[in-house]
Parts: sequence; structure tokens; C-alpha cells
Amino acid sequence: MIRILNEKEIKSIVSLDLSVIAAIETGFSELDRGNALVPPIMMIPVPEKKGEVDIKSAYIKGYDQLAIKVASGFFENSRLGLPSQSGLMLVVSAETGFLQGVLLDNGYLTQVRTGAAGAVAAKFLAPQTADSVGVIGSGMQARFQMAALMLVRPFSTIRMFSLDPDDARDRYVRDMQRQLNVRVINAPSIEAVVKESAIVVTTTPARQGFIKAAWLHPGLHITAMGSDTEEKQELEADVLARADLVACDLKTQSMRLGELRSALAQNRMTADSPVAELGAIINGRTPGRSDGRQITVCDLTGVGVQDTMIAINTLKIATERNIGLTVS
Amino acid sequence: MIRILNEKEIKSIVSLDLSVIAAIETGFSELDRGNALVPPIMMIPVPEKKGEVDIKSAYIKGYDQLAIKVASGFFENSRLGLPSQSGLMLVVSAETGFLQGVLLDNGYLTQVRTGAAGAVAAKFLAPQTADSVGVIGSGMQARFQMAALMLVRPFSTIRMFSLDPDDARDRYVRDMQRQLNVRVINAPSIEAVVKESAIVVTTTPARQGFIKAAWLHPGLHITAMGSDTEEKQELEADVLARADLVACDLKTQSMRLGELRSALAQNRMTADSPVAELGAIINGRTPGRSDGRQITVCDLTGVGVQDTMIAINTLKIATERNIGLTVS
Repeated sequence: MIRILNEKEIKSIVSLDLSVIAAIETGFSELDRGNALVPPIMMIPVPEKKGEVDIKSAYIKGYDQLAIKVASGFFENSRLGLPSQSGLMLVVSAETGFLQGVLLDNGYLTQVRTGAAGAVAAKFLAPQTADSVGVIGSGMQARFQMAALMLVRPFSTIRMFSLDPDDARDRYVRDMQRQLNVRVINAPSIEAVVKESAIVVTTTPARQGFIKAAWLHPGLHITAMGSDTEEKQELEADVLARADLVACDLKTQSMRLGELRSALAQNRMTADSPVAELGAIINGRTPGRSDGRQITVCDLTGVGVQDTMIAINTLKIATERNIGLTVS
Repeated sequence: MIRILNEKEIKSIVSLDLSVIAAIETGFSELDRGNALVPPIMMIPVPEKKGEVDIKSAYIKGYDQLAIKVASGFFENSRLGLPSQSGLMLVVSAETGFLQGVLLDNGYLTQVRTGAAGAVAAKFLAPQTADSVGVIGSGMQARFQMAALMLVRPFSTIRMFSLDPDDARDRYVRDMQRQLNVRVINAPSIEAVVKESAIVVTTTPARQGFIKAAWLHPGLHITAMGSDTEEKQELEADVLARADLVACDLKTQSMRLGELRSALAQNRMTADSPVAELGAIINGRTPGRSDGRQITVCDLTGVGVQDTMIAINTLKIATERNIGLTVS
């Protein structure tokens, strides 16, 4: 029997909360223990449409299901008035290989699990208290990242900088003020955001580093979640060179697709530079933040274990509550 | 809108016929023209269950959809009385990246497109007339390959050799006699099959070559479709060394997963040995069989273009006839 859930049904049973953050943390922990088999991302380019379909997956030993995520990014869709991102997740039995669930989430679960990874990064790397935080970008992840952060490092002010049009930025300010009950400031510059925030999350598709090392200050934590392809970069390479602690979700992937790639390419790091994987920090194999004045950076590229964890959890809840359509 | 088809619905609209063979031939042709973007196969191993989930895909320029195939092989399923193979195909818009179809075919379309590839190989490589043909194996592909071959090289006798139990072999003989209206002989040895057949198709999961070069005879064509992983092999390496013409579906893949891998590993071929891809033969860029006495071999590992072609065609027919379930 295959259970099929649409986006509305998925949203009715899964939201970004502490249980999801715990599941994502477990995923990174299993990855570090060597319990996750994570094949390289499959990328299917559609150059004519500036599009790409990416497939991520992971099998985690001891779990009786695995997930396969299909995520599309078609950057000319906006011309058609359509969202550029879409996708779905498949849940497959790790006992028999049979399909068990089709989660037609249009990328929602990816937004949630990516937000949750930001919370995990902050939990282990951000300063203990952070009254004022910052975000670069005003899209979906700029929302999810701040909502996730609130659950692990409650704050009272967001400083946001974005290149989006005025109305998108105004909407962000309005929405987040209401959603999180905090002050949201439309900041005049990235520099202002970084200098006045204890934690900064970058959520852009930028292709050139826009955070400068000169702006770093003691105690600052930066999570860079935007770069996930070979062309993208959010942090100037010197930021990673200057940080006291550089972490990431999966080192091999970050060196190929994330901020580590840029830092390596610009000779600001080497393949041997110390980089801590989140799972190793979670498992206590390597230290996270050890004092309030450290400057820490975490690069997130997104790992299949996150998808497998959130997809399994979603299908489990749907099955318990008998939500969705079933076909045999 | 997403159209979801189950196996029964798919079987009601798609079968192994000349139109499917033509579509698969077109797929190989596009591949050869450089119009297909075929990422490497994603493999998700589940070693505890001797299982593996493989993902294949291809985008073919000029087509407004692409397909993603998920194929599971779990070899302990038989203990549970379940088939070891299962799977599905997803059809994604190449215009927007949006999911358009979910084909819950349990591997049926793979059987059909694999059979069709065998027909394409025979069309360009087999001798013009073949009264007696052979097959090694008595499973699903042993059926599909013979049915496909009948469409391009009509024959009157099948010689079958298989290590399957008596009842499985008896069932094969009975079924194929009825289905194709030919004589089917349960042959005493592989040697007998090869020596008395003009065309032989191998359809096994063997891990060691079982067809010997000494048995080759003028005019023989062999299609080896079993090997699709690094462990499998059906032809002794000398068979490839001795053949007048070696072809395959995709050289890079066959060198990694197919009979070319074994021949290279055993130093019976080199990376520079002449190997013709089917698409190049179809497009007339390299010759297929040029005389009746040549010995020809074609190794099929299965390429994403086949999946994309058959999945697109299936969804097109289903949409025209309004078959299946639609969700939005």
C-alpha cells in the first residue's frame, strides 16, 4: 500500500518545531557515526530553462525506511508567475525496497528540514544568548531560519538585508513581526546587519561572497545556507580563514558545493584545514563553541539524511492519523 | 496537476510493440547526437537486506518532460514471498520542473524498455534471418527479450537454458509456446543453446562468464542484458575479444557495470578497443552488422534515455485517454 500526501495534508501534520529539529540532529549524528549511506547528489540539468532537478537520498542503518528527494529549481518560472522551486519525496521500505509513500510537498519539507539544520547549527555553535540576530535575504528560508533560530536562541530583534524589491522586504518585516512577535528592522546594509547581530544567517543564491571578514566581531556566529552548487558563494573566503571554528554539515559536499569550495579555490583554506562536521560536534567527538568570544561559521549544503529523517517522520504521522490517499 | 497510474492501468495502455521499440531507438539516437544529459546512476545500498535502490534519469533536449526512475532490487524478498524487483517512474516537466506523473509500474516499464533495447540491438546487429534463437534464463526478461526479438527477427524455435527450478522452466516453455506460437526447447546445456542458435540473449544475474568463446560460430549475435553492476558477468572475456563487432548501449556505463568492465579487468580489451554505441549505429555514424558471417555482441546495461522515452510516452497516452488518478 502506498500513501500519497499533498502539500496541504503535509503542512497540517508537520511544522518546524523541536521534534523536527531533534530528528534532524539525530540524522547528523547517525551520519557522523558512519550509519548513513549518502550517495552523491544526482543532478539533472535542463540548461535551456536555467533549470535543474536534483536528487538526494540517504539510507540510515537501523531505520526501516529511506527517502529519495526530488527537488527542482527552474529559474525562469517567475516569468510564468510560478514558483521556481518544487519537488517531492518518496519513502521506500528499507526492508523490501517497495514504495510506501509519496510526499507531494512542493519543497515544503526541504524548507522545514533546512530551517531545522540551521537550528542545530545554532544550538551547538551560536553564543548562548543573542538578543539581536540578522538574516540576509527575505525569501522562504529567511523566514524558516529565523523561526528555527527562535526555538533554540530566543531573540527580540531581527535585522534583515535583502536585494528583493521593496514590497517583498516590507512583507518580510510584517510577516515576521507577527509570526515571531519580535522587532524586524529593514537594515540599510549587510555590514549593519553583521555588526549589530550576534548570529547571522545567509539565505541567498549569491554567486559572490558578500560578508567581509573585516565586519566579524567577537562572539559572532554565521550560518551560511545559500550555497549548494559550484557557482554559489555567500561568504568572502577570508571569513572562513578568520573564523575560530569552521563547521559544516558534510565536509566532502561543502568542499564541492558550499563555502568551503570557494575558500579552497581562493587558497584561503586547504583540504587539511580543520573543519568540524555538525554530527561530530553533536556526538561530542569534536568541540562546538567553547567560549563566548569565538567567531564561528557553519556552512550548510543540505544532506540526504535530513530528507530521510523528515520524510520518515512525516509518513509515520500520516499513517498513525490516516491522512492522505492510499493506493495499492 | 499530477497524474498517478498504477501497474494495472499502465499495463492496459503500454505493451512491448513496435511503437515502444521505435521510441527506445529514438532515445539511443538522441543520446548519440549529444542531445541527452544522462547523470551517473545513483545507487543507494541497503547491505543488511542485500538490497539496493537505483535511480536513473535523463533529460533529452527538445522534449518537454524528463523521467526519473527508482528501481529496487532486494534479494531477500523471495523469503517473504515477495518479488525482489520493484520501482516506479516520475515524469517531471522540463519546462517548469513540476512533477506531472507518478507511474507506479513496479518495474513493468523497465521490463518493456529493456526488452525493446534488445530488439533495437537485434535490428542493427543480428543476422537478417534467424530461424532458431536462444535465451539463457527463464525469468521475466527471458520472456520480454524473446517477445521483442520476434518483432524484429521472426523465428520459429527458442532454445532455453536456465538454472531455475524445473517448474519455472516448464512454465517458461508453456508460456512462450502459447504467447509466441513457436517451439520452445528446454536445452540440456548453454553450449547447446549457443551452438544451435543464430541469436542468443543472456538474461541472468550471473557473476561469472558462462558463454565461452569456443562456442561462437559465424553469424552469431549475442545480446547480454544481465550485467548491470560491478559484480555481474555473463560472457567470458574472450567472447568480446573474439567478436568481430562489439556494441553496447553506453560505453562509459558498460565499462563500469557491464561486460566491458569484465573484459577490461581481464585484459581482453583496452579502453581504446573499438566498441560501437547503439546510437552511433542507429545514426549511421558507425557500421552495424555488415555481413552474414560476422560475430556480433551487444552489451546492454540500461540507460536513463530509455526510461525517459517510455515514461513520457506512457503519460502521454494516459493523459489522452484520461486514465489514472489526478491530484493537484
